[in-house]
Amino acid sequence: MSDSTTPVIRITSRAHFSAAHRLHAEGRNEAWNREMFGKCNNPHGHGHTYELEVTVEGPIAPETGWVMDFKDLKQIVSERVVKKCDCRNLNIDVPFLEGVIPTAENLAVRFWEQLDGAIPGARLVRVALYETERNKAIYTGPGR
Amino acid sequence: MSDSTTPVIRITSRAHFSAAHRLHAEGRNEAWNREMFGKCNNPHGHGHTYELEVTVEGPIAPETGWVMDFKDLKQIVSERVVKKCDCRNLNIDVPFLEGVIPTAENLAVRFWEQLDGAIPGARLVRVALYETERNKAIYTGPGR
Amino acid sequence: MSDSTTPVIRITSRAHFSAAHRLHAEGRNEAWNREMFGKCNNPHGHGHTYELEVTVEGPIAPETGWVMDFKDLKQIVSERVVKKCDCRNLNIDVPFLEGVIPTAENLAVRFWEQLDGAIPGARLVRVALYETERNKAIYTGPGR
Amino acid sequence: MSDSTTPVIRITSRAHFSAAHRLHAEGRNEAWNREMFGKCNNPHGHGHTYELEVTVEGPIAPETGWVMDFKDLKQIVSERVVKKCDCRNLNIDVPFLEGVIPTAENLAVRFWEQLDGAIPGARLVRVALYETERNKAIYTGPGR
Amino acid sequence: MSDSTTPVIRITSRAHFSAAHRLHAEGRNEAWNREMFGKCNNPHGHGHTYELEVTVEGPIAPETGWVMDFKDLKQIVSERVVKKCDCRNLNIDVPFLEGVIPTAENLAVRFWEQLDGAIPGARLVRVALYETERNKAIYTGPGR
Amino acid sequence: MSDSTTPVIRITSRAHFSAAHRLHAEGRNEAWNREMFGKCNNPHGHGHTYELEVTVEGPIAPETGWVMDFKDLKQIVSERVVKKCDCRNLNIDVPFLEGVIPTAENLAVRFWEQLDGAIPGARLVRVALYETERNKAIYTGPGR
Repeated sequence: MSDSTTPVIRITSRAHFSAAHRLHAEGRNEAWNREMFGKCNNPHGHGHTYELEVTVEGPIAPETGWVMDFKDLKQIVSERVVKKCDCRNLNIDVPFLEGVIPTAENLAVRFWEQLDGAIPGARLVRVALYETERNKAIYTGPGR
Repeated sequence: MSDSTTPVIRITSRAHFSAAHRLHAEGRNEAWNREMFGKCNNPHGHGHTYELEVTVEGPIAPETGWVMDFKDLKQIVSERVVKKCDCRNLNIDVPFLEGVIPTAENLAVRFWEQLDGAIPGARLVRVALYETERNKAIYTGPGR
Repeated sequence: MSDSTTPVIRITSRAHFSAAHRLHAEGRNEAWNREMFGKCNNPHGHGHTYELEVTVEGPIAPETGWVMDFKDLKQIVSERVVKKCDCRNLNIDVPFLEGVIPTAENLAVRFWEQLDGAIPGARLVRVALYETERNKAIYTGPGR
Repeated sequence: MSDSTTPVIRITSRAHFSAAHRLHAEGRNEAWNREMFGKCNNPHGHGHTYELEVTVEGPIAPETGWVMDFKDLKQIVSERVVKKCDCRNLNIDVPFLEGVIPTAENLAVRFWEQLDGAIPGARLVRVALYETERNKAIYTGPGR
Repeated sequence: MSDSTTPVIRITSRAHFSAAHRLHAEGRNEAWNREMFGKCNNPHGHGHTYELEVTVEGPIAPETGWVMDFKDLKQIVSERVVKKCDCRNLNIDVPFLEGVIPTAENLAVRFWEQLDGAIPGARLVRVALYETERNKAIYTGPGR
Repeated sequence: MSDSTTPVIRITSRAHFSAAHRLHAEGRNEAWNREMFGKCNNPHGHGHTYELEVTVEGPIAPETGWVMDFKDLKQIVSERVVKKCDCRNLNIDVPFLEGVIPTAENLAVRFWEQLDGAIPGARLVRVALYETERNKAIYTGPGR
């Protein structure tokens, strides 16, 4: 580096998982839910091949040249989110989603909570979740 | 054209839909199903954002320069497949899938049956179905 | 949520439209235009399959779990931008582009103006427009 | 190779170009054209970022291990198609498209004619043209 | 199924690996190699993030609804090709590529040989290898 | 524009190059390097088809409607980064990478240094480098 400071940089790891969900508010009646969520309230659910992007920020360690090993970031995302959601029904099967309407927005926030503070040497800065290639939610944390 | 014949050509329309499914054989017991389908047998289902490619073949009509309007092909695929599957549970909600284990392979064959013979002026030649960007099934009809 | 505040989050809707355009400044002569815009000044125009990403930000409504329905965001973008530009010549056919050189940059700003304030419950934060998969413009509003 | 024959293989080169077009049959009146082509008949044209895939087939040359240099295939496609169409109006500016309604189907056939026989050491087997990521035409030649 | 036969269908599994290679013919001198391979003959090599698509064909097994588990196909491709090539130098580190100029074409043929006959219940029909998103080789076997 | 200020906007140019690299710290012994970098420390190297996104920010020039010509931005990125890295070994062949462990993070920072200040009329704001479609590094400069 031409300057004396250690550069701070972001790295992103992308993964996918396949899950069922249903948009339904437990505290409301059927008519309200059908009106609000339309087809997404289908009682038997539907699903997505979700694409998940997790971005962390940190200084480049001089001895390795990286913030962290991409392999390690992938492993953390896999353990804390992907394995818990892949081939699952997000309304029923995932403890950390209990009581949550599994919209892309709520999922992004909950995934943030699963990952925040769990990544050694880097700070979580962004969780982006694609339901389809045309629809995504982006969460950058409670502090902003 | 340098020759006197009308060129025969293929056109492809791509669409997507979001659906839940569960891999489960009704005639078999739970243990067999768990052993065979693993995580995909999860009782509450999982799901995909399916990408569907439908390809038809026909002569280029001289007065229009096309086999058919892309818009019309999209409309037929939408009416016969996409609207019936989008935001649905493929094990329960789709009449033409009744009794079918909703693997990518079986879906491709059933989608073929929904579309074959329903496309004016063109012949169905290929149905490709992506469960994820890494997994797809390709059906080119019973004749091959 | 582990904290008591409602999370603020972003959602993005992606759409595409097909349009012709020509880079040409009306107030300048032909030589200047040819020199400045090169091939893009071709008198008969050229065109693109534009990809448009619209991002809005807002609180997650507790009763629905979303900022707004992706379907509603898509609908607003469709009514205010996509339908007005799809299958059009951007130099001639679109009232809100009158007098504008239809570069990606100018289009992004004008699309922002079409959308800003028109999205109930959310704030427009980003308009990105791809001319090709290799070239895009990104506008985040006049305030920044 | 475990057998004594030289393998025959296909290689594909992908390129893109940006062009305007209008679907309009010169020999028909305005009403017929509007009815048939709808929005695509817009008098001032529209356009696409076309993606073009050209596939050739040939034996793997033992001394080089390739059918031909990807760079050479790209160059031929660029000279014979891309440079002639990029930043052009396909109804007006391209000599080899004179009198052709520039549908994806007709373009694919004409591009085939531009390329067939012009690729040393390989045989043209497929031209695929995407108007959008959802619509494409595929031509495999007059012999099939 | 409306007919009595078991449908035959294709499934594709896509994977990627990152490898170095150098285009160089051992039996030729430096000048010939530089002339023939140009930049790709760089003595210290270059590399690609290769995308590999493997397609197999087989009957849909009635009790499972699939040709084979996508997971099993992925596993075979991983063991026989991906793990042997990922993070390797294809000129030096891969026993089954010894003495092979590692062009996309030669790699596709050698990957075919690694996979052919190794996939229970299905027949290998196509190996496609992308060096970049714009360049690929497609091999469909010695029999065609 | 409805307001009197000139809009400030970002444009992004995307390119790719194919290169070999090896993760290895010169000042450390073999055991340390193998432990730290694992497969990426393979002595003969591996490689990637890198995708590079360069984003600049500037006012829209009123007479042209653009920040700068996309063609010019592409040219600068090509001259200063792509041509120097394409078909090269990043550990050996690139002067501005001498002594740098060629991680995605370090490459992004060095590419920034190559580009910063070299783009007339615009300010560099972001360099993103994809090693694979799942792994990327994003650098927004030393000032943040």
